[in-house]
Amino acid sequence: MSEPAAEPSKSALKKAEKATRMAAQKAEKAAKQASVAVVGGKKTDDIIGITVTKAENFPLWYQEVVLKAEMIEYYTEISGFYILRPAAMYIWNVIRKWFQERIEDMGVEETNFPMFLSNKSLEREKAHVDGFAPELAWVTKCGDRDLEVPVAVRPTSEAVMYPYYAKWIRSHRDLPLRLNQWNSVVRWEAKQTTPFLRAREFMWQEGHTAHLTEELAGKEVLEILELYAGVYEQLLALPVVRGTKTENEKFAGGYYTTTVEGYIPSNGRGIQGATSHCLGQNFSKMFEITVEDPNKQGDHIHVWQNSWGLSTRVIGVMVMIHGDDKGLVLPPRIAKIQAILIPVGIVNKTAAEDKAKHAEKVEELRKTIKKTGVRVDTDTRDGYTPAWKFNDWELKGVPLRLEFGPKDAAKEVISYARRDTGEKGTIPLAEISTKIPQLLGTIQKAMYDKADKSFQEHRLKLTNWDEVVPALDGKNVVIIPHCLGMDCEDKVKDLTVSKNLEQPEGPDNQRAPSMGMKSLCIPFDQPDGLVKGETKCLNPECSAMAEKWCMFGRSY
Amino acid sequence: MSEPAAEPSKSALKKAEKATRMAAQKAEKAAKQASVAVVGGKKTDDIIGITVTKAENFPLWYQEVVLKAEMIEYYTEISGFYILRPAAMYIWNVIRKWFQERIEDMGVEETNFPMFLSNKSLEREKAHVDGFAPELAWVTKCGDRDLEVPVAVRPTSEAVMYPYYAKWIRSHRDLPLRLNQWNSVVRWEAKQTTPFLRAREFMWQEGHTAHLTEELAGKEVLEILELYAGVYEQLLALPVVRGTKTENEKFAGGYYTTTVEGYIPSNGRGIQGATSHCLGQNFSKMFEITVEDPNKQGDHIHVWQNSWGLSTRVIGVMVMIHGDDKGLVLPPRIAKIQAILIPVGIVNKTAAEDKAKHAEKVEELRKTIKKTGVRVDTDTRDGYTPAWKFNDWELKGVPLRLEFGPKDAAKEVISYARRDTGEKGTIPLAEISTKIPQLLGTIQKAMYDKADKSFQEHRLKLTNWDEVVPALDGKNVVIIPHCLGMDCEDKVKDLTVSKNLEQPEGPDNQRAPSMGMKSLCIPFDQPDGLVKGETKCLNPECSAMAEKWCMFGRSY
Repeated sequence: MSEPAAEPSKSALKKAEKATRMAAQKAEKAAKQASVAVVGGKKTDDIIGITVTKAENFPLWYQEVVLKAEMIEYYTEISGFYILRPAAMYIWNVIRKWFQERIEDMGVEETNFPMFLSNKSLEREKAHVDGFAPELAWVTKCGDRDLEVPVAVRPTSEAVMYPYYAKWIRSHRDLPLRLNQWNSVVRWEAKQTTPFLRAREFMWQEGHTAHLTEELAGKEVLEILELYAGVYEQLLALPVVRGTKTENEKFAGGYYTTTVEGYIPSNGRGIQGATSHCLGQNFSKMFEITVEDPNKQGDHIHVWQNSWGLSTRVIGVMVMIHGDDKGLVLPPRIAKIQAILIPVGIVNKTAAEDKAKHAEKVEELRKTIKKTGVRVDTDTRDGYTPAWKFNDWELKGVPLRLEFGPKDAAKEVISYARRDTGEKGTIPLAEISTKIPQLLGTIQKAMYDKADKSFQEHRLKLTNWDEVVPALDGKNVVIIPHCLGMDCEDKVKDLTVSKNLEQPEGPDNQRAPSMGMKSLCIPFDQPDGLVKGETKCLNPECSAMAEKWCMFGRSY
Repeated sequence: MSEPAAEPSKSALKKAEKATRMAAQKAEKAAKQASVAVVGGKKTDDIIGITVTKAENFPLWYQEVVLKAEMIEYYTEISGFYILRPAAMYIWNVIRKWFQERIEDMGVEETNFPMFLSNKSLEREKAHVDGFAPELAWVTKCGDRDLEVPVAVRPTSEAVMYPYYAKWIRSHRDLPLRLNQWNSVVRWEAKQTTPFLRAREFMWQEGHTAHLTEELAGKEVLEILELYAGVYEQLLALPVVRGTKTENEKFAGGYYTTTVEGYIPSNGRGIQGATSHCLGQNFSKMFEITVEDPNKQGDHIHVWQNSWGLSTRVIGVMVMIHGDDKGLVLPPRIAKIQAILIPVGIVNKTAAEDKAKHAEKVEELRKTIKKTGVRVDTDTRDGYTPAWKFNDWELKGVPLRLEFGPKDAAKEVISYARRDTGEKGTIPLAEISTKIPQLLGTIQKAMYDKADKSFQEHRLKLTNWDEVVPALDGKNVVIIPHCLGMDCEDKVKDLTVSKNLEQPEGPDNQRAPSMGMKSLCIPFDQPDGLVKGETKCLNPECSAMAEKWCMFGRSY
């Protein structure tokens, strides 16, 4: 406790704290031994805790967390689809609101295009469509009648939207045209699906904009990328590396792709966070989206286009990085319940009058805390022990547990336990209005710092090829000098297949455990030490000079 | 002008006002004669106004308004689908936010279920599914592979969601379960489609809840219906009649349906506004959603369920009722731009210095008005005359036009024109912070009152059968004593087919112009004069006694 002692002597306080802590530990232990509900109804039989540790079986641990924290339900009717439950939708809506406000300020407007696209539009942009063709879901029948022309469910909306951009953009006065939609798209992947990370239908936003010049388009690409980084860093307390995708990994049919890349410490894999693409003039040429050159009458300019998307994948990344063996750990900024207040120390033999008085005090505390803007709730469910409730809220990731019992009342304090570190302490009642919001701020920052430290430590700058595979096997991603050649990148992948991976493989690991590394991005923030024309590409089978430091890793 | 004159003499002011008004009228007239842009770029050729009056061809007028006000674009790739453009999405988002806040307060949580459903779930509830079967879109192929089991795109989500309600609801402690989702659904209708009113894909919210008792379910049905009425009355400035659907018209598979019903004065048709259904125990029996009776151990209760939905149809109803021959007329509460400030009186020969000074003053005014919370924008587009701008903003329905020129500056006033009535006047600059918000409130109320008066006058309580068809032909809906028999209702429809309808029929009128009347609802607010067991059903071919006053009409 760094809180200064208020009235009672320091030693008395310390003693009391110790007693409180020991009681809580005892309760927790009891709850672990039998983490079951203690009362009637069918629920009594349920083990609510996570049954496997994050270290022993990460994929299974992840499945249990998203299921038991009630974020996800498997849609058993059709494989590869998931139901997003309120615990997930709340987080998505916080992100949506945050992002929406900011793109509105940029002048992006909302639209909604149909979910189907016809073959006609699809045929326009071959490079783009080839990328999606194997995953298209085709509607061929309505009722019992065959459709004359089958229609596909959108896997993304470039081909749906751009014929109308050609119609709407008729003068440079119509630029920039900046539209965004919040929807879901369908990609009927053959690969193994994983909740949030890879699903056959997923929710996202897709922004599609058109600009007069490359410069204006490029400026927006980076502004949006910075918002995506903000979603990770500011809301989800997750570090990301900003960069550009290599030619091998860029968006099909685009000009260049910028990305924010994350890192999953448990298996050392990189994961693409969100991408902001400059499409260049590739699509505007296919869809004939032109304006008259404002500087040279009679000449026509193909507009410069961007598209950018952020999906519910972000939630999965957050769960994987912050979660622990007790379940979900939520950063306060995106938690629906930031603090859960649990009455303790009330037993069956407590007099009815005392019970009522205590309940009143708890409700009063809740109101005081709520007034400070903290999203607080009380758990006054009858028939569950405090220990059972502790476990339940820990599983659900609530950042701060507050306990209040007769002993706390006597000492005029509230006891707390941080979800992220388990740290316990007390706050004088007179100070809860300032200390609780502060503590939530501290938790948010600590969660970011912990994840950032881990990513920093596992992002190895290497200049010796022999260290690459051991680094990958040690759950690192690597930053190496690379020539950026497409064939070289394929070769690097082949050369980095390993047989030494320690990580046990569960059903969500669709690739071989020893998979080769892919390029994640060319970081904007380039380390020192690469001399153009002197530094060689690190791939021992490549004779080219290095162009950039490139981040590679085994990845999702 | 009811504004008190400020400094100059009354007569001087009046003179100035008259001059201003005449100038404006002259400008408007000029604009009408050539409602085209006056400058370079392709847009010069566009006629921006509506080319047909609401009275002479209502369906065509409607199409022009939603297209030219840029709410809708026809999705020409696949018929029956529409693109919702920012002007429509803004309104939908205002409604969404308003409704979402209120259901959140009620304890409804957000969810997102997959868009596809399997045959297995579909087969569970036959009465329900038979209603939708002919309109189901079937995905049978992915990429070039046939799906083993085809899946349908949801037409509504009862059959998607309720298998999971059976899983999640295991004790009465899990009740009420109240979930809502914002999504789009697909009903591949054979009927003629109309923007907003009937589309093969449409956006809506669908709430699905489960309760322990009929009483609790019933209470929620009405709370939600009242919110739907609020969307119409408070946001869209549209009156509705609250009531219950007859057996013929209730939701397929449900117990009873409550509804808010609107009225389109231009063709005298009724239109269903939004419906809140009590499903009773019909679905819980099919999907086996039960809890143990809290009052009688060992007994099981099938839960009581509701479902309720509000769609983008509301926008179409609003356009049809408030729009006029100049285009859209938006109620201030849902208008993205509530007031458009247009600099006037600046001509080519105005000195550059004066121009700059005036522009500065206009910007200052905008800031002052914005500070009051009014959504105000300025139209400082170069190369367009004020008259062209007036037409453009009238077409787009902006509730209040503000004009500011050197003459206004001299008099320290701002001139305004109301979109709903065309009324013009001036406001002293010193009073704009109070008067402009007031004026927007006045417009909102006046629009509601006008529509309410029209609905009141065309909702005829009839007790003489011979007056029914003439009333329908006179663009009224009727409230008549009815037995509520299903066959009788069919018969009433046959008997009220008419050959006298004056309304010209356009492409969006899918039924014969002389269609028979359907029951719209049994109004909650029952008129006097019906004596149970004495008053006969008004259908001359029915011998039964009347049960209720029932509202009938030709309808969408």
